[in-house]
Amino acid sequence: MTPEMDTAHPHSDVNVPARLSVTALGGIPLIKPGDDLVQIILDALDGMGDRLEDGDILVLAQKIVSKSEGRIVDLESVTPSARALEVAEQVDKDPRLVELILSEATEIVRHRKGVLVVAHRCGVVLANAGIDRSNVDQAVGGTDTNVLLLPEDSDASCARLRQDFQNRAGVTIGIIINDSLGRAWRNGTVGAAIGAAGIEALLDLNGEPDLFDRPLQSTQVGLADELAATASLVMGQAGEGRPVVLIRGLERGHGQGRAADLVRPRDQDLFR
Amino acid sequence: MTPEMDTAHPHSDVNVPARLSVTALGGIPLIKPGDDLVQIILDALDGMGDRLEDGDILVLAQKIVSKSEGRIVDLESVTPSARALEVAEQVDKDPRLVELILSEATEIVRHRKGVLVVAHRCGVVLANAGIDRSNVDQAVGGTDTNVLLLPEDSDASCARLRQDFQNRAGVTIGIIINDSLGRAWRNGTVGAAIGAAGIEALLDLNGEPDLFDRPLQSTQVGLADELAATASLVMGQAGEGRPVVLIRGLERGHGQGRAADLVRPRDQDLFR
Repeated sequence: MTPEMDTAHPHSDVNVPARLSVTALGGIPLIKPGDDLVQIILDALDGMGDRLEDGDILVLAQKIVSKSEGRIVDLESVTPSARALEVAEQVDKDPRLVELILSEATEIVRHRKGVLVVAHRCGVVLANAGIDRSNVDQAVGGTDTNVLLLPEDSDASCARLRQDFQNRAGVTIGIIINDSLGRAWRNGTVGAAIGAAGIEALLDLNGEPDLFDRPLQSTQVGLADELAATASLVMGQAGEGRPVVLIRGLERGHGQGRAADLVRPRDQDLFR
Repeated sequence: MTPEMDTAHPHSDVNVPARLSVTALGGIPLIKPGDDLVQIILDALDGMGDRLEDGDILVLAQKIVSKSEGRIVDLESVTPSARALEVAEQVDKDPRLVELILSEATEIVRHRKGVLVVAHRCGVVLANAGIDRSNVDQAVGGTDTNVLLLPEDSDASCARLRQDFQNRAGVTIGIIINDSLGRAWRNGTVGAAIGAAGIEALLDLNGEPDLFDRPLQSTQVGLADELAATASLVMGQAGEGRPVVLIRGLERGHGQGRAADLVRPRDQDLFR
């Protein structure tokens, strides 16, 4: 190997910068059950003087998808089961909330005072089955006891929205629904994908060459999760109300996939 | 509440889009032990006709920081201990590699055939203590057995780099070192912060109002991890060789913090 080879780069495209733009749309109103998210997003983009392009990724906050799908439940309407009463006692939470959490879950992963981590029906492991009260408009049900559930099937919601954008704007895009999830071992929530369509949610790099042209050993990238986390940076977690993010410029990963691909099968999971 | 209030947005700034630009720098050469990363990055930006601004975030791939710090070890130089031989047998890995992993770790979190998840000295829980062979230039040591360790102290490396940029370019920026980490419960790696400086790595939203002006209950965001994941989207995992990413436009989270803030204390961790 000559000295020059130490610094000359073996892959020529690295001299070209790679760029993404990440834009949280302005002008998205508060979302109510039955709202037409696709039209609202197209209008917001129009108001910004922008329009969707093939290959764009739209990341939607779970809350607006859930609200548009009417996934709001008034705790006053919930009667806790004996099991919910028992768990509620152990975790020190409202038994009606625990009833909803258990009805959304397939398994309790961990519980103790103040903590109820479950596997949601869709496979995602998260606290309280993703149900919460923050940013839920109490006025919709006229009470102070409304909570918001995850979409019934977030991958299906993404596929439907993607098809709608295709039909109504003539563009082929990727759609992700994100939520802020806690993690094992690490403090703080990060945006993660609970639904996806039109994107290789789990991107397989097996066999691609590394910098020195040796094949990479098995490497799978949680691409949809990285996109979801990116969107969270501009959505904000509190009152910002910028629940739709457009990511433009992604070079790879366009294709088929769903957030369910990101769920590690229970029998391969060392951390349940 | 009047009907108008259902859709009128209670926070006025939401009509303004929020934008981030994410740019993987072009023209970063292969990094060797002793290389001056700060000058290399300033030169690369210059070559792109760009320059750093106050508030910019630079995300550096772990591998280039490790290489510049000379954290390359030739497995031929390693003599495995009895303990390493025993664990190597259980996980079916090279005993010399296992010796290095154990010397970098404070605790084995999970192990079985093919899997060795540990807590690194710095607190991060990850496979093989972050040691790997892909993208390590075997020519540096002249052998085919080089491996690359994490930086000695990634938070300290970030603080040092940040100070260097301040001194040499007169800018106040944030620095993150990222690596691709596996997760509990979910398939695929995502970029995460193993080092940080000049950024509130763990951003505390406790008490900020939600959309309806109720205080959020405890919400801490893994901000540096979201930035690290964002950078991974343009770095790529394989041979792209774009190990430096500039994130511009982040509205909040500039301040003090370190990646160690993202490590959940062992006694509060339900998943070890």
